[in-house]
Amino acid sequence: MSPTPELSTSRLSFNQITADHLSLDEAVEACADVGIRWFGPWRHKLAPGAERRIRDAGLRVSSLCRGGFFPAPDGAARAERDKDNRTAVEQAAELGTDVLVLVCGPAPDGDLEGARRQVLEGIETLIPHAVEHGVRLGVEPLHPMMIAERSVVVTLSQALDLAERFDAAEVGVVIDAYHVWWDPELELQVERAAGRILGYHVSDWLSPTPDVLAGRGMMGDGVINLPRIRALVEGAGYRGPIEVEVINPALARLESAQLMTTVRERFERCC
Amino acid sequence: MSPTPELSTSRLSFNQITADHLSLDEAVEACADVGIRWFGPWRHKLAPGAERRIRDAGLRVSSLCRGGFFPAPDGAARAERDKDNRTAVEQAAELGTDVLVLVCGPAPDGDLEGARRQVLEGIETLIPHAVEHGVRLGVEPLHPMMIAERSVVVTLSQALDLAERFDAAEVGVVIDAYHVWWDPELELQVERAAGRILGYHVSDWLSPTPDVLAGRGMMGDGVINLPRIRALVEGAGYRGPIEVEVINPALARLESAQLMTTVRERFERCC
Repeated sequence: MSPTPELSTSRLSFNQITADHLSLDEAVEACADVGIRWFGPWRHKLAPGAERRIRDAGLRVSSLCRGGFFPAPDGAARAERDKDNRTAVEQAAELGTDVLVLVCGPAPDGDLEGARRQVLEGIETLIPHAVEHGVRLGVEPLHPMMIAERSVVVTLSQALDLAERFDAAEVGVVIDAYHVWWDPELELQVERAAGRILGYHVSDWLSPTPDVLAGRGMMGDGVINLPRIRALVEGAGYRGPIEVEVINPALARLESAQLMTTVRERFERCC
Repeated sequence: MSPTPELSTSRLSFNQITADHLSLDEAVEACADVGIRWFGPWRHKLAPGAERRIRDAGLRVSSLCRGGFFPAPDGAARAERDKDNRTAVEQAAELGTDVLVLVCGPAPDGDLEGARRQVLEGIETLIPHAVEHGVRLGVEPLHPMMIAERSVVVTLSQALDLAERFDAAEVGVVIDAYHVWWDPELELQVERAAGRILGYHVSDWLSPTPDVLAGRGMMGDGVINLPRIRALVEGAGYRGPIEVEVINPALARLESAQLMTTVRERFERCC
């Protein structure tokens, strides 16, 4: 039995970067207008009162994007990152979400192994503050093509190797279909992630892909078998919000109402 | 002790796609002029007499690019691919190389698992013809960002899973630094590949990367730690030619002599 549209939409969360051209207020209102009930804010859009404005629009926060960026060229820079990550934890708690998404990279000097060690140390350092604020850390493996600019954690297997060094109540993983769909070990690793999946993100892979960092497609416009990946993620026990995170500047050309209607319709039909 | 430039260059092979704008004759002559001794032709550039022209210029063929492309929408199309791959084997033998590079994909219908099965069956079908001609099949894992357009084999681990179903004298792997440098399992998998490495390719990863399929950089212009990967590959026992394969249309702007001089100089200095 397929879920009714109403039930299906109840898990849809709008990840704010999908409408980076809108203000927080504009994005939240446009979501509420089409019946979207969850919102995934990005830190660069936060301002005092954000929590109240999201709540007043009837939305709940699914996760906060994003902390991490642990590797740094020297101790002073690392201390700055650690401090910023503590702030991110506090912001997540204030927004009423218990998930902070971590981007784990890049390597400042091209030393992948060194950067991977710094990621591990950075997470270890952040955990006590996160625990204190009731926030779990979600390691999101990014697509291997983003290794130079964003993340030295590029497979779900690697993200789990990291997360499993800690308690499942403290560190988990965020699975984004766009970042992991190519992985020959996907089925195996999603199964392994059971109990640690803190979020599931969707968008689509355009062929050809117009841009390495910002060339994602709306669900249904690309080649990812999204229902299969959702089935794997749900098979591993995840029942939380599903964030639509389509990073593509071309979306700024749509009217906000049209964008939100498309997101909702594609989510119901293609995910 | 670092190798002398002369010794270092003795393993350099020029992969023809690096100068796709030149004819076979032009490319071969330009290679010979700067002392390059190996050449990796592409099939779309072959014409009668190619073997003689390469040999007359004093070059040897390191491998032939490329066979594969096994997955097809129906039996007739698959039979066509099989036939074309038998031709590729014959061309490799005629060119005096014992390595045919295989591109294993893409999936005609987005079904990655189905396409992966067809790759396995295609290799199995091709082996007797390859053995008869003294040609080994080199499975080249391509970067995961190329999965939609080129290859459903996207990690060295996966390529080895495939190759290990057959005798090492029949099926091996081709390791291209550009395609595998991001892999957290790189060290482990290159070690595992010992005895099956049929080729090693180099280029560099530009940051930002201008194009998913044709945005590679000349060695030294990007962020890959090429000496480390070469050390891993040599640690696994590979001592054969190293192909410079830089797929980037911007290279067509260089005069052929300048291109070859750059290839040689960068190979000696950065690889």
